[in-house]
Order: sequence, then C-alpha cells, then structure tokens
Amino acid sequence: MFKTEVCDLLGIQYPILLGGMVWVGKSKLTAAVSEAGGLGLLGAGGMSTEEIVSELAEVRQQTSKPFGVNIPLARPDAEEMIDCSIKNGATVIATSAGSPKRYTAMIKDRGCQVLHVVSSVKFAVKCQEAGVDIVIAEGFEAGGHNGFDELTTLALVPQVVKAVDIPVVSAGGISDGKGLIAALALGARGVQMGTRFATTVESAAHPNVKNAIINSQAGDTCITGRTSIGPTRSLKNQLTSRIVQAENEGMAPEKLMEMIGGGRSVMACVEGDCEEGTVYCGQIGGLVDEVISVREAVDSMIAEAKTIMGRLSALAE
Amino acid sequence: MFKTEVCDLLGIQYPILLGGMVWVGKSKLTAAVSEAGGLGLLGAGGMSTEEIVSELAEVRQQTSKPFGVNIPLARPDAEEMIDCSIKNGATVIATSAGSPKRYTAMIKDRGCQVLHVVSSVKFAVKCQEAGVDIVIAEGFEAGGHNGFDELTTLALVPQVVKAVDIPVVSAGGISDGKGLIAALALGARGVQMGTRFATTVESAAHPNVKNAIINSQAGDTCITGRTSIGPTRSLKNQLTSRIVQAENEGMAPEKLMEMIGGGRSVMACVEGDCEEGTVYCGQIGGLVDEVISVREAVDSMIAEAKTIMGRLSALAE
Repeated sequence: MFKTEVCDLLGIQYPILLGGMVWVGKSKLTAAVSEAGGLGLLGAGGMSTEEIVSELAEVRQQTSKPFGVNIPLARPDAEEMIDCSIKNGATVIATSAGSPKRYTAMIKDRGCQVLHVVSSVKFAVKCQEAGVDIVIAEGFEAGGHNGFDELTTLALVPQVVKAVDIPVVSAGGISDGKGLIAALALGARGVQMGTRFATTVESAAHPNVKNAIINSQAGDTCITGRTSIGPTRSLKNQLTSRIVQAENEGMAPEKLMEMIGGGRSVMACVEGDCEEGTVYCGQIGGLVDEVISVREAVDSMIAEAKTIMGRLSALAE
Repeated sequence: MFKTEVCDLLGIQYPILLGGMVWVGKSKLTAAVSEAGGLGLLGAGGMSTEEIVSELAEVRQQTSKPFGVNIPLARPDAEEMIDCSIKNGATVIATSAGSPKRYTAMIKDRGCQVLHVVSSVKFAVKCQEAGVDIVIAEGFEAGGHNGFDELTTLALVPQVVKAVDIPVVSAGGISDGKGLIAALALGARGVQMGTRFATTVESAAHPNVKNAIINSQAGDTCITGRTSIGPTRSLKNQLTSRIVQAENEGMAPEKLMEMIGGGRSVMACVEGDCEEGTVYCGQIGGLVDEVISVREAVDSMIAEAKTIMGRLSALAE
C-alpha cells in the first residue's frame, strides 16, 4: 500500500519520513516512526557525538527496523557525527544545510543511503550530481529553517521531479493522507513530516510547545531572519514580533543577530518558553489539533489516503 | 471526468477556472477557457464599464457557454461593474479584494453565482456567512496580489475545506494535471489558474511577458510590497531589485509607494517592458515552458490527470 522506490531503497513499509528536528527528534520519536513503518531520523543537530551514541543505542533497543540520522553539515564535527551514526546502526544519513558533495561518496562507500534536503531546483540537481540517493524537496510552508527562494511545496516538488531522475520526497505542509496523495500526485515518491511528528506522544518537545502548536490556527506562523540568520518559520510570539518590527525598520543584520541571540530553540523546545523561545512550526500546524501517538498518526494517514483514493477514482471515471 | 459540484453550480464541464487577470484576461481568453470546458472570467480590474460591455459582447460572439467577470471590490464603481456584467450575460461574478458582504446578496438575487477569492481561513468563513457560493482559496505561490498570511496552497486549502461547507476552489501553484489531482486530494472541488492561461495564445498579455514567463526558472519570482502596496508576486527584474533593496533598508511605506508609482502592470502587460514593469507570475511559471492554446492547456491537463490517477491507483492497491 503506497509502496514506492523510496520504500525499497530505505527498507521501509510506508514512504513516510520523520523530518530531522533539533531537541525534538530524539530516540523515542525516531524509533516510533520506524516501528510504525516509516523512517525515523534522529535530529542530531544539537547533540554531541556522545549523545548520538547513547541515543542510537536506545533507538536500537526500541526497534529492529531501519533508521537514520539527520546531520546539519554546518556543524564543524559533521564528519565525526556521520561516522559515529553509521558505527551505531544508522543505515540512512540525511544531510542538510551544506554541500552534498562533501560526504555523499564516503557515506555510500560505507553502505548507507544518502538523503539531502533542498529548497530549490538548482540544489536538487547538485544532489543528483553528487550521487545522493533521494532528494527531499522542502517547501516554504515547512517549519524551521527555510530556503531563500521561498518556493512552496506545490511549486517546488514538480519542478524538482522534472529536473532530476532520483526519487524525490516532498516536505513542508504535509500532516495527513490528503498531503500524502497530493505529494504523490505531484510526482514525489514519499513525504517527510516535521510538525505532525513533533506533536506526537513520543516527541521530546516540551508539552508547552506541543500545546502551542495544536492550539494554533492557520496564519499563526511567520518567517523571521530573512536578512540575518536565514529564513526560519516559527509560531508568532513576543520574540517574532520584536524581530519582525526590527526587520521592517531595516535593522542591520549584525544588530538583528545580536537581538535574536543564541539558545532560542532550547528556550522553547526544552524549557517550554513559547513567548521568548523559537517554536518551530509549519503552516500545517493549524490543521494538527491533537497530540496522538506516532502509530495513530501514521495509521490514520494511510487510512485517509485510501479513502481519498476511493473518492478520486470515482471522480476520474 | 473530474466533474464536481463546482461544475454543476457553474454549468461547466471541467472544474477549471480562469483567474481574473487585469490587462491579460480579455474577451478572447475568457471565451477560450469557457469553450474549452472551463469557466472564463473576464479580468475587469483595469476596464471601464464601457469596455466591459464591449468585451462581453465579444465573449458572447465567441462562446455560448457560461462565463463570468472578476471584479476587484476596491474599485469605487464596483456596483456598476457588477450591474453591467450581469446585464451583458455574465452568470458568475468573482469578487476579490474587499468584503463579500457588500454585494453577494444583490448578485444572487439577480440569479448569478458568486465566487470570492480569499487567502486566509478567516475570510473563507466570512464568505460562507455572506452567502458566497464557492470560495477560491489562493496560496502564497500565486502571481499577482497575495495575502498577508503567506499561507501556501498546500497548507491553506485543507484548512479552508475543514472550516467551510461550501465548495472550495484551489488557486496558486497549479498549471497542469499534477496540480489538479493534488488540489482534489486536498479537498478542493476545482482549480483556478492564472500563469498557465496568461501564457496561452489567446491571452492578451504582451508577447514579451509571455516569453519572460516561459523562459523563467523556479525561484525567478519574488514578493514585493509587503510593507507598502500589499504583497505582490511578480518576476524578479530591475524594478523588483530596487524595491527589495529599499524594503530591506526599511524605507517608509509612503516613500516606497512613491518609488513604485502607478502603471507598472500596464508597462509590462500592455507595453512589454519586462524590466521596469510588473510581470505578474506565479511560482509555477518555472514549469510553464511553452505558449500553447487554451484548448491544448485544458486537454493536456485532463489527460495528465487521468494518467496520474492510473499511477496512483496502482500504488494504492
């Protein structure tokens, strides 16, 4: 059911991937997504290599199915992170925020699959040239770090599919069976979800963060950082109000960075401060209105996708 | 084939609507879309009532199928425009850029269907309360005037569908059969297209504009006007470079409006200046790479949609 070449490449049942999420995508969530038939990806962005080792040990205790690790290549110790991930059982490495040329060959030489996250057609082509196995095309509606081109999933995915021969996974704006069928219609061979999995029982996000997202409405997220740290989508709050105002007044990038400061995502995700911390959230957050288990999220997604296929098939007759 | 309640309400064969486009959606394009089985909507934004009368006379000469008129409610003579549209054969009035409360009852009393374009869930609910027949949910990827919430089609449409009982038409990011199936999967009951129809043989856009769009790549559009005239998506050019720079430097709204000035869309669409004029274009412009007839655009869209349904059905078994 909805088995694509992404499933074959990654050894999974459903073409559903967990987006790499710093502080949120820890062992429990990673294992739960793999156990439910998708691909769990440990969000290692904020972890030391020691933490990666211990988190992956826990993942392996909770599932015998394939799992991976998300490595932001901006980290100076990215190579060490990749090495310890593979040594500790990851069969998939998802890289982001850097050039796919640097580590793809090395990862593939060690028998793992390489996924790379892009937000433009140009970088998708570079991924293919670098030997990446699957490109994840992430649209403007996605939570967290975002591309400068602001291409939405609906516009980005078919243009990426047209430009490359490797399988494309669609990310951004997807939380359910509607999003899965839409993505497959656009030519994607799978989906990656962040916000939906961040608000599951198994997510390591602070309960305040989960509540803030499930209580949010359409239009409650915004992009900040366009002129400074790079575009980032999060829930509107006191912090983003100050940033948006300063941006509109033309504050210089260095002053903006100083104002934003470090540790804003820890403040929200770990400490639960949803006004002064950064609550990463995609635009689909308005549609996510319950904290459920990962299993429920995946099963209800597949069930809804089947229902939609029935409805569409009747229309197409 | 793909017949939904939108088809029944509007008396059309395919649930495909022409987006109201100033200077571009004139009689020839309007009639061609209706003749091809969709709903032509005259883009009356830049027309005097006399022009509307003469344009609609030409539409009626070219088709006996239903057609409509798009009326931006910001126009001070909107009521007169509606009146002369209905007197001259329009059976559908699509309103935008204003409150649906003002004219919906009047239009319905005269036996016409009312469509209203929104970019947020809140306004979709207001449309339903006002008695609008069909709400057009237009995402951030759309060309031309754009909402402040920046909700993408993939995020906006399912949230609107969940919030209202009236049929929803999806707009923004759709140019082909992939977009049609994706929109239907999201719960929309039809699609509206601008950029695809603007680059057809029958479009009144200057040939330079059609060429600029078909030669554009993903990432070649941008939003300007966020802090002044309201967000507007167009092709990047000399004009948008100056505006973006001034915006980033925090130029005051009044000074920005002065710099942008009037007549920028005429300069492009009518006069063909694609560097100093505003070339409205959606993000899907990168996927549109040929000037074809309206009939070809619609027929190939339906054919592709059928093919996709075959592929999806095989996946869902």
